[in-house]
Amino acid sequence: MNRKEFRDLASPAAAREAIDSLSLEGGIERVSLEEARGRVLVARLDAELDVPGFDRASLDGYALRARDTFGADEADPARLDLVGEVHAGEEPDVSLEEGQAVEISTGAVMPDGADAMVPVERTDTASDGETVLIRTSVAPGDNVMFAGADVAAGERALGPGTQITPRDIGLLSALGIDEVPVRAKPRVGIVSTGDELVRPGDELESARGEIYDVNSYTIAAGVEDAGGEAVLYPHAGDEAEEMEEILRTAADECDLVLSSGSTSASAVDVIYRVIEEQGELLLHGVSVKPGKPMLIGRLDSSAYVGLPGYPVSAMMVFRTFVAPAIREAAGKPEPASATVSGRLARQERYEEGRHRLMPVGLVENGEGETLVYPVDKGSGATTSLADADGVVEVGPETDYLEEGEPVTVTLFSPDVRPPTLFGVGEDDPTFSRVLDGLERPRYLSVGSRPGLRRLREGVPDVAVAAGPLEYDLEATELCRWEREWGLVVRAGNPDELEGLADLIDRDLRFVNRTTDSGLRSSLGAAIADLAEERGTERHDLVDAIDGFDLGLRAHESPARKVIAGDADAGLGLRETAERLDLGFISLGEQPVRVLANPDRIEKEGVKELERAISDVSSAQR
Amino acid sequence: MNRKEFRDLASPAAAREAIDSLSLEGGIERVSLEEARGRVLVARLDAELDVPGFDRASLDGYALRARDTFGADEADPARLDLVGEVHAGEEPDVSLEEGQAVEISTGAVMPDGADAMVPVERTDTASDGETVLIRTSVAPGDNVMFAGADVAAGERALGPGTQITPRDIGLLSALGIDEVPVRAKPRVGIVSTGDELVRPGDELESARGEIYDVNSYTIAAGVEDAGGEAVLYPHAGDEAEEMEEILRTAADECDLVLSSGSTSASAVDVIYRVIEEQGELLLHGVSVKPGKPMLIGRLDSSAYVGLPGYPVSAMMVFRTFVAPAIREAAGKPEPASATVSGRLARQERYEEGRHRLMPVGLVENGEGETLVYPVDKGSGATTSLADADGVVEVGPETDYLEEGEPVTVTLFSPDVRPPTLFGVGEDDPTFSRVLDGLERPRYLSVGSRPGLRRLREGVPDVAVAAGPLEYDLEATELCRWEREWGLVVRAGNPDELEGLADLIDRDLRFVNRTTDSGLRSSLGAAIADLAEERGTERHDLVDAIDGFDLGLRAHESPARKVIAGDADAGLGLRETAERLDLGFISLGEQPVRVLANPDRIEKEGVKELERAISDVSSAQR
Repeated sequence: MNRKEFRDLASPAAAREAIDSLSLEGGIERVSLEEARGRVLVARLDAELDVPGFDRASLDGYALRARDTFGADEADPARLDLVGEVHAGEEPDVSLEEGQAVEISTGAVMPDGADAMVPVERTDTASDGETVLIRTSVAPGDNVMFAGADVAAGERALGPGTQITPRDIGLLSALGIDEVPVRAKPRVGIVSTGDELVRPGDELESARGEIYDVNSYTIAAGVEDAGGEAVLYPHAGDEAEEMEEILRTAADECDLVLSSGSTSASAVDVIYRVIEEQGELLLHGVSVKPGKPMLIGRLDSSAYVGLPGYPVSAMMVFRTFVAPAIREAAGKPEPASATVSGRLARQERYEEGRHRLMPVGLVENGEGETLVYPVDKGSGATTSLADADGVVEVGPETDYLEEGEPVTVTLFSPDVRPPTLFGVGEDDPTFSRVLDGLERPRYLSVGSRPGLRRLREGVPDVAVAAGPLEYDLEATELCRWEREWGLVVRAGNPDELEGLADLIDRDLRFVNRTTDSGLRSSLGAAIADLAEERGTERHDLVDAIDGFDLGLRAHESPARKVIAGDADAGLGLRETAERLDLGFISLGEQPVRVLANPDRIEKEGVKELERAISDVSSAQR
Repeated sequence: MNRKEFRDLASPAAAREAIDSLSLEGGIERVSLEEARGRVLVARLDAELDVPGFDRASLDGYALRARDTFGADEADPARLDLVGEVHAGEEPDVSLEEGQAVEISTGAVMPDGADAMVPVERTDTASDGETVLIRTSVAPGDNVMFAGADVAAGERALGPGTQITPRDIGLLSALGIDEVPVRAKPRVGIVSTGDELVRPGDELESARGEIYDVNSYTIAAGVEDAGGEAVLYPHAGDEAEEMEEILRTAADECDLVLSSGSTSASAVDVIYRVIEEQGELLLHGVSVKPGKPMLIGRLDSSAYVGLPGYPVSAMMVFRTFVAPAIREAAGKPEPASATVSGRLARQERYEEGRHRLMPVGLVENGEGETLVYPVDKGSGATTSLADADGVVEVGPETDYLEEGEPVTVTLFSPDVRPPTLFGVGEDDPTFSRVLDGLERPRYLSVGSRPGLRRLREGVPDVAVAAGPLEYDLEATELCRWEREWGLVVRAGNPDELEGLADLIDRDLRFVNRTTDSGLRSSLGAAIADLAEERGTERHDLVDAIDGFDLGLRAHESPARKVIAGDADAGLGLRETAERLDLGFISLGEQPVRVLANPDRIEKEGVKELERAISDVSSAQR
């Protein structure tokens, strides 16, 4: 195999074609009626019997000969002899002669000789109990459902390719069918590779660079969404023999094998070798971002697609290229096109000349227009898709999209609904409780400073900012509360810290937050005060603190460094210290402000937020 | 309990309120990540760790100190000493000093001392293998994903009420969470009552008026669609003690009990008594059609709803009143509103003053407009919903809707797509095979005559008519073929029938088809010919045929009567006789015509039909 052949990247269309050329179908299986919902019929089903199977009374009343009622009305009822009764589920033991009637219940078999029935409401039984007065006239067939009127034997009931709904299950039950032939779900084997991967639930050694395996579970859920059956294989490390064994087993057991994970040269080499020995490589490298390092081929009789290792890339490529092929093989119709039109919230540059799949979030502005903003935490991010609502595709010829440019967003699924409220800013435990009371909020913990910047740019509805506000901002303050901040230390404060001065004057290891955080601003202000008090320069104090420059992005990370023994004190909140059973040295209180875009204060989600804030504050009082 | 209280029918709004007042919730359960898709989180999940848990190289290349690269470019690369390597999943065993670099692979831990990395593409290793040339300058942090940059410890990850998507599963995996607390699915017990009910798959005795149980399976599928767990209980006959026992067991084991089926007075009495003794009846009778005989109440700690017995009514009431309550209890958002606007295809009268739920089908006319037609086979029909696409609600104040009136259709589910082709008419085996080749066709076997009538009325795209055409019709003939018709007799023709004359001259029991059928028209013509030949009147011959007036609607029913021994000969097709291994006496050939509405011949579905017809005819050639 000559790898050079694949140096030119294939077009997205060529990738689709290559996948379409593979056979993913899983064959046929028979399932019971209880399991048939959503499955896809492989053969036509014709009715093997009439429904109903007999002429059936539609109401409670009297079976009779229509001609015996001709001319009857309220004033001049027809009088018929009562000669018996028939209930549902019984075989009639009478037959009717002229001038006779039989009491009949809904659903019962019409007795021989009767050709119509009259509902009980239009009749009176005579006092002798042996005759019935019929106060209306009926035509032959009235109030009778004839055999086969609902479905007739031999009639086409459901066609091949029908995706079975509860209504179809009604039809199948009526025909007495308790098992149906459906397309087997394509079996999709998932092989994640990489020595660094650990299954969720297991212990993680971050120092060794271990990370939890995201792709296996995410892709498995995506496979099942698309109508396939996901089979998770044990992690293949980067060890060649083990990986080869797993790939061969998966190819043997599945209709499609998806690998993802390691991008190490050795892993790729193994995949190439196995495909070379036992299959065929159709395509290597696609001109799409994310997704360039995609492989498409065959492994024995199984189809094979190699997904990129980064979770966001893997999922985008899966959605775009693989999921449609699984749906096709499962016989599932493409989901109803769920697209949303909106305007791009900010300019987006892009200069790589590849077809681009851009995950985006949606937010409604004050006028009810949909704004679309790219969601991107960088290519290594595993989680950005949880903050996105759909995808905008941008062709390779487009270098940039202007702010305000109309774009079409394909939602991740037709039932995705954009968040009711979009907030950004400081991570705050009180605000987190407020969010719990809202339906479908979205909140990105980016820190106070970036939060305010984004609010100014006009994308989010609200920003949460902690600490002193550094500049004027055109925003509506919805609410403000105070929170106690300071130094989080070991439980019981064994180092006997008393305040900020200890960090400066003693040999203690400190862990700071990044400058994005409102806590860092308050710490900066406290150090400035102390400098003034001591008549010295701020930077002298800062230089004296071991770890001041090491700012962690994460809200609780300094406290966790203290727990791990990597630091003696960390910047944090009293609430965090208490929750993690740590000691706490208070350095003051700082305001937390919830600031809204003034154009959005009438937006339903923002009003809901105000209500939720007052609920939480009254609960705390 | 005084039943008179409930004589006045409650409004649909009151019924909704009564159901909302019941508690259907099933509590909390913990499920594994593999089972979490689509479930609804009951509690907020915060990140318990940083993702990534370490500063991570984003690419393959060299970790270094950014300041060592300042000023480096292609012309004047920086030369650094290579002091080690780090792979993904390994703990670095080196730390960097000034002027040094470490080879690093994607995803590996940045070694101490390094604050940036340079991708391998922008470097050259010197021939000594001990130094590396860096052909670009980088800033601190370049190509590094810092610990917590993706998700930070303490950050709010997913809020309560989140319906878990594959993307959320990605986030949960990244956080190492392998089990999540979700709302338990509400358990819904389904009790169908009625002595006449038989489970699909079991033997049916039509003579006793037995029918297959449609409601149990249909409602169960509806319950699962809505996010509940369906529990089917054995049929309760109309025997009071048995039924009471089943109701009590179901109430004990489930969050909601749904009964449906028997409308017999005794069954209703038992339900009343059990509710009276162990629960509370909130509402009896709702002013909605279908659905009047609806009960809402409590049975012990379980909610209880009594559905109407007729399957279409039961399903419509379930959809309208019960499914939303199950979704609410399951925490599932209401499905995205899937509505379609269209024009009513024909006038619809209605004079009962109840709120009406009208099942309708959809068809696109030649101009791409959506026509909406009511689907109604009468209240006893079990299967009409399989031929419907959605529901039009009509208020009690509306007496009739005009043809062409704009209406809004709520689709049965957002992924319902109207059929590509809507045909009506004669049941024909060849045409049925043609339909197998189409995607989502709808065909109603109403017979030739009603089919032509409907085509004239302008609703369907095509009609299939067999036998002589009785009047001129403005229609485009897409195709025509011949089929052989005659008498279906016992295998081997033991009665030695030779033709039509035997039916007239001998004492044989015949089974006819209804006048709707094209077969009946051809039979009529053959009898007229024979009358002329014999110089007698047509009606004399007809009178001499035992069973001529007994016309069955169903295509195969006459043949099945022959098999059952109820008749000596039945009207039918050679193809039917051969398929059922019966004898056949040919009476001739008759044309089968596929006639299209001339306005629809350009419609995609009609063109597909023409292609499918030519496929089937070339296969037969």
